[in-house]
Amino acid sequence: MAKKKLNIAIIGGGFMGRTHSNAFRQAPEFFALDHEPVLKAVCTRNAKGAADFAANWGFESSESDWRKLIDRKDIDLIDIASPNDTHAEIAIAAAAAGKMVMCEKPLGRTAAEAETMVAAVEKAKVPNMVWYNYRRVPAVTMAKQLIDEGRLGKIFHYRAKFLQDWTISADVPQGGRGTWRLDANVAGSGVTGDLLAHCIDTALWLNGGIASVTGATETFVKQRKHADTGETAEVKIDDASMFLSRFKNGSLGLFEATRYARGHKALYTLEINGEKASIFWDLHDLHRLQWFDHRDEGQLRGWRSVHITDGEHPYMSHWWVPGLQIGYEHTFIHQAADFLAGLASGKPASPTFRDALATEYVTDAVLKSAKSGQWETVRN
Amino acid sequence: MAKKKLNIAIIGGGFMGRTHSNAFRQAPEFFALDHEPVLKAVCTRNAKGAADFAANWGFESSESDWRKLIDRKDIDLIDIASPNDTHAEIAIAAAAAGKMVMCEKPLGRTAAEAETMVAAVEKAKVPNMVWYNYRRVPAVTMAKQLIDEGRLGKIFHYRAKFLQDWTISADVPQGGRGTWRLDANVAGSGVTGDLLAHCIDTALWLNGGIASVTGATETFVKQRKHADTGETAEVKIDDASMFLSRFKNGSLGLFEATRYARGHKALYTLEINGEKASIFWDLHDLHRLQWFDHRDEGQLRGWRSVHITDGEHPYMSHWWVPGLQIGYEHTFIHQAADFLAGLASGKPASPTFRDALATEYVTDAVLKSAKSGQWETVRN
Amino acid sequence: MAKKKLNIAIIGGGFMGRTHSNAFRQAPEFFALDHEPVLKAVCTRNAKGAADFAANWGFESSESDWRKLIDRKDIDLIDIASPNDTHAEIAIAAAAAGKMVMCEKPLGRTAAEAETMVAAVEKAKVPNMVWYNYRRVPAVTMAKQLIDEGRLGKIFHYRAKFLQDWTISADVPQGGRGTWRLDANVAGSGVTGDLLAHCIDTALWLNGGIASVTGATETFVKQRKHADTGETAEVKIDDASMFLSRFKNGSLGLFEATRYARGHKALYTLEINGEKASIFWDLHDLHRLQWFDHRDEGQLRGWRSVHITDGEHPYMSHWWVPGLQIGYEHTFIHQAADFLAGLASGKPASPTFRDALATEYVTDAVLKSAKSGQWETVRN
Amino acid sequence: MAKKKLNIAIIGGGFMGRTHSNAFRQAPEFFALDHEPVLKAVCTRNAKGAADFAANWGFESSESDWRKLIDRKDIDLIDIASPNDTHAEIAIAAAAAGKMVMCEKPLGRTAAEAETMVAAVEKAKVPNMVWYNYRRVPAVTMAKQLIDEGRLGKIFHYRAKFLQDWTISADVPQGGRGTWRLDANVAGSGVTGDLLAHCIDTALWLNGGIASVTGATETFVKQRKHADTGETAEVKIDDASMFLSRFKNGSLGLFEATRYARGHKALYTLEINGEKASIFWDLHDLHRLQWFDHRDEGQLRGWRSVHITDGEHPYMSHWWVPGLQIGYEHTFIHQAADFLAGLASGKPASPTFRDALATEYVTDAVLKSAKSGQWETVRN
Repeated sequence: MAKKKLNIAIIGGGFMGRTHSNAFRQAPEFFALDHEPVLKAVCTRNAKGAADFAANWGFESSESDWRKLIDRKDIDLIDIASPNDTHAEIAIAAAAAGKMVMCEKPLGRTAAEAETMVAAVEKAKVPNMVWYNYRRVPAVTMAKQLIDEGRLGKIFHYRAKFLQDWTISADVPQGGRGTWRLDANVAGSGVTGDLLAHCIDTALWLNGGIASVTGATETFVKQRKHADTGETAEVKIDDASMFLSRFKNGSLGLFEATRYARGHKALYTLEINGEKASIFWDLHDLHRLQWFDHRDEGQLRGWRSVHITDGEHPYMSHWWVPGLQIGYEHTFIHQAADFLAGLASGKPASPTFRDALATEYVTDAVLKSAKSGQWETVRN
Repeated sequence: MAKKKLNIAIIGGGFMGRTHSNAFRQAPEFFALDHEPVLKAVCTRNAKGAADFAANWGFESSESDWRKLIDRKDIDLIDIASPNDTHAEIAIAAAAAGKMVMCEKPLGRTAAEAETMVAAVEKAKVPNMVWYNYRRVPAVTMAKQLIDEGRLGKIFHYRAKFLQDWTISADVPQGGRGTWRLDANVAGSGVTGDLLAHCIDTALWLNGGIASVTGATETFVKQRKHADTGETAEVKIDDASMFLSRFKNGSLGLFEATRYARGHKALYTLEINGEKASIFWDLHDLHRLQWFDHRDEGQLRGWRSVHITDGEHPYMSHWWVPGLQIGYEHTFIHQAADFLAGLASGKPASPTFRDALATEYVTDAVLKSAKSGQWETVRN
Repeated sequence: MAKKKLNIAIIGGGFMGRTHSNAFRQAPEFFALDHEPVLKAVCTRNAKGAADFAANWGFESSESDWRKLIDRKDIDLIDIASPNDTHAEIAIAAAAAGKMVMCEKPLGRTAAEAETMVAAVEKAKVPNMVWYNYRRVPAVTMAKQLIDEGRLGKIFHYRAKFLQDWTISADVPQGGRGTWRLDANVAGSGVTGDLLAHCIDTALWLNGGIASVTGATETFVKQRKHADTGETAEVKIDDASMFLSRFKNGSLGLFEATRYARGHKALYTLEINGEKASIFWDLHDLHRLQWFDHRDEGQLRGWRSVHITDGEHPYMSHWWVPGLQIGYEHTFIHQAADFLAGLASGKPASPTFRDALATEYVTDAVLKSAKSGQWETVRN
Repeated sequence: MAKKKLNIAIIGGGFMGRTHSNAFRQAPEFFALDHEPVLKAVCTRNAKGAADFAANWGFESSESDWRKLIDRKDIDLIDIASPNDTHAEIAIAAAAAGKMVMCEKPLGRTAAEAETMVAAVEKAKVPNMVWYNYRRVPAVTMAKQLIDEGRLGKIFHYRAKFLQDWTISADVPQGGRGTWRLDANVAGSGVTGDLLAHCIDTALWLNGGIASVTGATETFVKQRKHADTGETAEVKIDDASMFLSRFKNGSLGLFEATRYARGHKALYTLEINGEKASIFWDLHDLHRLQWFDHRDEGQLRGWRSVHITDGEHPYMSHWWVPGLQIGYEHTFIHQAADFLAGLASGKPASPTFRDALATEYVTDAVLKSAKSGQWETVRN
């Protein structure tokens, strides 16, 4: 049976532009899909850069103005991999044009902005998804399955952190290519929207809704040169953010993100303690799941380091043979494959824009609490 | 030169009575000390138990009423290893009688209670110490040295947790031998005074004062049978406790303790992230220090797992040969040795009662915050 | 500048056919190469399977008789990913036809067979390479650099093992698809040629030539059903193989491979102990290198777990950002990229057929010693 | 009931003199024993040193000539903790005098020497034991229990190594206090009798007899100054030793020891692979047992890191509470307790002199093979 072509335009040629391009290239090689993704066009602000990116990744065309992609009839799907301040405008335009929309996380810079995006795709009734890629780490996907099967029993604790160390030097600028995440106008917030958002998305998925939070943020380096202006300016993003929370299921949550944890490049860790079993996972060894099962015989109870490389583990039958690990990029390939499978099945893959809005409600509450010094209720 | 005898009475014959007895027995074998500790008397509520304990550990006598020890002229030092509700009364009486006083942690059930104890020993001008034993884990002591040498540079983050899982079952009673820690009258608080207090004491020692906190506590099992009455009663201790904090040096702190973390028996972990280096340590592998030094050559930077068993590591020249680890009990031996050395040198070993009071101010603030939902300033 | 097309035919559509196809697909996306690999044809014994494989992976054509590929003028490179018993015949024919030749390891089933292959490519003067992919694990490549820079000093010990557990059940057949490695006629030997060969290739690369060996092999399951005949027949491969060795540089070697190590799927580990530093690496966490440097300050010496994900690590600048790991398949991508770069530079990438012959001399000596019970000198 | 006093004389005041003294001091505090060990006398060559040692450890008397201890009627047990060249003479004299004899490992410098010792104690029918202390690491003891319960099924592989790095510098002398292990006259052999002997004793205990071996040894530093003479002399011990073996149960063995493995202080590791389960343990984290059970549910199979600190683990009910680790010295305490319990029960604790002779047969065969280049049969 001939596959249906799905014409894709990716906006953004940076780090995320690369992961998305690779995801669509690789998904059909490893997953049996009804749709054949076609890399139709890529758009970056710089025409030469766009053309080079297109040549490298096999896109049929390139643009330097994303609006042209919205107008093109040969594009089915707009995939947004550009900085946060562009998400809403592009997504709303794409939805209005009847195109499917995928968007890098966070969805919007604020929950209010994200709400406009949700409204747009829901009004247009177009397939949509947000790239919270860590749901598709096989170990994390398996954690979800284990929890859904009730293997942990009642949950008492959820704790997650995302630690980096790349902005410790005061010489790192704010704004500009590669450092726009330090510019509050572009990024919306600092680590709260960047790193904590990942932790929160996974937590909501694994452990359900968060009722309330109390948080604190800090900006360790108060002034940085702005790459656009060359002027030193106040840093308005949060360098570090942490919060306590109460989940709706009665469990307690503890979350932290920072770019000032010397020695950690991208250490996202999560742990869930249930009555019967506990789970631990970390991104620096993403191919392992730590599992403790209280039902094991007493003297032999211990944390199991499960090497998530067997065919019976989520996604892994599509890859190599037992014992051989996959890496970071595969989470995007899985997400692309799931999105395409969702198109075929009619059961949209998560997280949709609406799913991702829930994360924005939490990050908004954290930032609000950091200012108010109070516990804040999370919107629903 | 003949050693000076130091006549010791230990009150309490449980877990801590054993660790203290062992500490005083072993310290002189491994450390060159001017004082010779003499196990003069032990006191437990049950006369038979006291006698058995004395016979086992080589005490010269036993008592079932601690007041008799206060009256005995042949006792130089009262060491309190009995439940928390007895600390203040004994300590104050001992100090009033001019005896040296050592006390298991936490010092008092509340800061107010602890203040009366501090006042008593300071008025009496008697040597005093609190058994916050984890300061004497060689890896932790070395962390202190590294920080004091400025090797970490400016500190950004401090995080610590103490996880256990022994009270998950609703069948564990409150009150009684071995379970008095679940009885708020006896223990004062739950994990806050029991486990968090350890985390806080170490934090204050390593990272200086805490300015303010916001915390949350939870009691997962609301009703438990009381071992004394046989009646089911409300559980008034905190099963879990966590808080965010701001240290006076500008760093952020994140603390958590619980007895509901399935898979962890006594997992006390701490991590400190500085501008130049980071440290991680955990009690389940207490003989290792994890060290990351940003000054290492770039491509070879990595967390070093330092096996703290060499002669140049704190305390270790007193033990065996490189590669051979010591365990939990040695932290008490080190503390006993340091106390005795402090008597000889005239430089009291820490933490004194006053030092330990600082921890009480933090735990009080955490518990207050857990009720108020506000950030609370920590007293000084 | 237009890239030169390099027309590739891959023979074999199994596990290795997939890794090679992926390697040639992905290399040009991540590496700047003068040549553009074109997946011209794939060949498997089954015409339908070949066509399906071609469709999935984007090959322009498919064949079920490899000889047709030799005859085709539009093929520049024959890449052999079929079982061991086919390597020599195909490679020799390809070389005779003037084609470049790449070959899965081991080169031949015996050193004698491998010698005919070396002679063929050297006579034809065609570029050639053997897929000992583990040289291109970034951590292993970095180990090579560290050794070549003299950072380890004089080498004392080299130890490697490759442990699997997939043939413990007596129900695994010999021969047939997926299990031909248990058929001595097809595979040549058991774990010696399959797993030990990897360990030896890396060892020769990192630590130089092996002078002599004494080995032992064992076949735990003596009889297995043959998938081709359905008959139970004697198992003639080695299930386990181990040997002691002396390297030419005076260091001692210890090697072991087995498919009977319960709990290990593909645990290839290697450790090198030098006068100044030591290295450890294992395939189950291939993105980490363990490094111990005696020149570190005494009290802070420890094994560093280096997360090989930074731009300054070998190959890693081509991938994502620090902290994000790659996986198994990337080793093949690196090897394909290096081969193509070697074509452009005129400096052939290793290991060539001749390089790989050195490994065969060692495996031959091990198998000979296992029979003779003597130390055997390794040919050069 | 009054305890029987057991009057003990320890010969040797070095590292092992300390571990034994501590063992006899501590055993009665933690284990309920019918016998009360009395530290009656210690003997070292230097009278002042002996007196100091006695004062420190609480021995009632000291001697500088061990023969006087043999003559003393008030000594029940001679415990030999002096260098290897003294073992046989002392043990034979002690046995002839009707005294119980305990001896540090290795029993003799050669199997022939050890045989004379076995003959002596068996003729005299005196209780006897060799301090192969690693059998009493709780994790190792539990491994023994698991194997004896048949939980591993048929055993395929046994591998052990003991790695140190303290003699890499050519400045380390041979002979003299602390370095007598490098003097072949005193030590008998190098790492074979020192480190491999430990590995072999445990292996024979866990996995039964070794049928045959092929080995290799190396002396990396050929000349060292002798501490006694000040003259540079040939080094006659083995710096490194490794061997392949076949166990009587059909499993394969791989053993290695060296003092030239940079980065390892006392890394004794052992792994056993059985049909159903595997075990791994290492001395640098001696309080953990790694356990892989193939009977676990497929997707959740993984190596369990069992923290051997619970009351249901061997020996641990005598120590502290779950989660709190013990260390190296405790293995000697356990052995002393077991010896004393064996006296009371009439069931001698292992390893007896005869048990330890089996290890000598293996080390002799290894050293013989290292010279002959042949497989050597191990005597029984």
